[in-house]
Amino acid sequence: MTGTPWTRVEFEQQLRERGRAYHIHHPFNVMLNSGKATREQIRGWVANRFYYQINIPVKDAAILANCEERAVRRAWVQRILDHDGYGDDPGGIEAWLRLAAAVGLERGEVESLAQVLPGVRFAVDAYVNFARRAPWPEAVCASLTELFAPQIHKQRLAGWPEHYPWIDHGGLSYFQSRMTLARRDVEFGLATTLERFTTRAAQERALQVLQFKLDILWAMNDALASAYGVTPGE
Amino acid sequence: MTGTPWTRVEFEQQLRERGRAYHIHHPFNVMLNSGKATREQIRGWVANRFYYQINIPVKDAAILANCEERAVRRAWVQRILDHDGYGDDPGGIEAWLRLAAAVGLERGEVESLAQVLPGVRFAVDAYVNFARRAPWPEAVCASLTELFAPQIHKQRLAGWPEHYPWIDHGGLSYFQSRMTLARRDVEFGLATTLERFTTRAAQERALQVLQFKLDILWAMNDALASAYGVTPGE
Repeated sequence: MTGTPWTRVEFEQQLRERGRAYHIHHPFNVMLNSGKATREQIRGWVANRFYYQINIPVKDAAILANCEERAVRRAWVQRILDHDGYGDDPGGIEAWLRLAAAVGLERGEVESLAQVLPGVRFAVDAYVNFARRAPWPEAVCASLTELFAPQIHKQRLAGWPEHYPWIDHGGLSYFQSRMTLARRDVEFGLATTLERFTTRAAQERALQVLQFKLDILWAMNDALASAYGVTPGE
Repeated sequence: MTGTPWTRVEFEQQLRERGRAYHIHHPFNVMLNSGKATREQIRGWVANRFYYQINIPVKDAAILANCEERAVRRAWVQRILDHDGYGDDPGGIEAWLRLAAAVGLERGEVESLAQVLPGVRFAVDAYVNFARRAPWPEAVCASLTELFAPQIHKQRLAGWPEHYPWIDHGGLSYFQSRMTLARRDVEFGLATTLERFTTRAAQERALQVLQFKLDILWAMNDALASAYGVTPGE
């Protein structure tokens, strides 16, 4: 944990390399995006991931509640508006409910959280609790899995219409909107992380935090794989 | 703490009656609004109240971070936008800094919080900590001092230009904007409180919470009176 700080370029490179542990590589996700998933597996994923979706604005509010810097809050609050909706925009959670409808789930069933697996709940709760308690720059750093998110959304948009023609295409609009928003959001999160973690020890800590968040997403997929199975790939 | 619940009308009446303990009646505030305050007393008030202002969005974010109801968050987030600013709106904290400039304070001096009295800090911190830990409806209830706020802002707007002609009038725009926003905000807070505190014990608890918040504002004035003195009234 000691040593010369990495340069900004090296540090960003280190963060990006952690993408090798992104859940895009999890067998359950590989199955989803390669078209091997059954309707039940897709519905299970959508219903469970909903728990993550509804906790994101709570997590982001926890970051605001820990942050004394108005300029940071002004930027970060946009995430809450994006997810909860603001004015005429129904927001990302509502878009996820449209996806749920498109895969054949009842809205009330999804909102009841009855299908949410314990492992998914524990992982998501761990993320929210981290955001409540960690210094806000660490919680911002944890959001850097967004570095890898456009690729996973792109896979879904490219493959799902062909693999799963039974899903109404309008339901995929969440992925489309996140392609843009995740790119915008990660710019701020990355700049903040590169600026605020300046000693080598702090930079190493940032990598641990990012790994923790990668573990959250991975563990959610583990729980899904365990409950719904993984259809063997080609 | 037991008994028949008050009707909605009775409960609202009980809440409104607590206005008798609003800091509008504190000797330090009476002095400010009756034109007896010196420049030093006004500057002391503005510099100290700034600590309250900057903590309001943090308190509101704590409420969001404790609230699982998206519809409530969608309404409440507006307060954060109002105080921190959003888009082209520089927001309420910035408006307070304009007031500070208008009474002759340096921006950096105010932002340094060097003049913030321990008693003011403890009172404001108690409010933020309450919002972090209390169930969110209680923190919403605590905001109901807004029931009484338009009157105090109105006094300032009506009296200050005459009493304190040395203060640039543009600096008073904060009070003007809060007249409108406090009225809008309190509608939601009041409706929420009336809906969510339905047993008699809960209604009594709501009154305790409101009293706690009144005590916060009163204690801030106590600290100010102690540090800057109170010019005897007529």
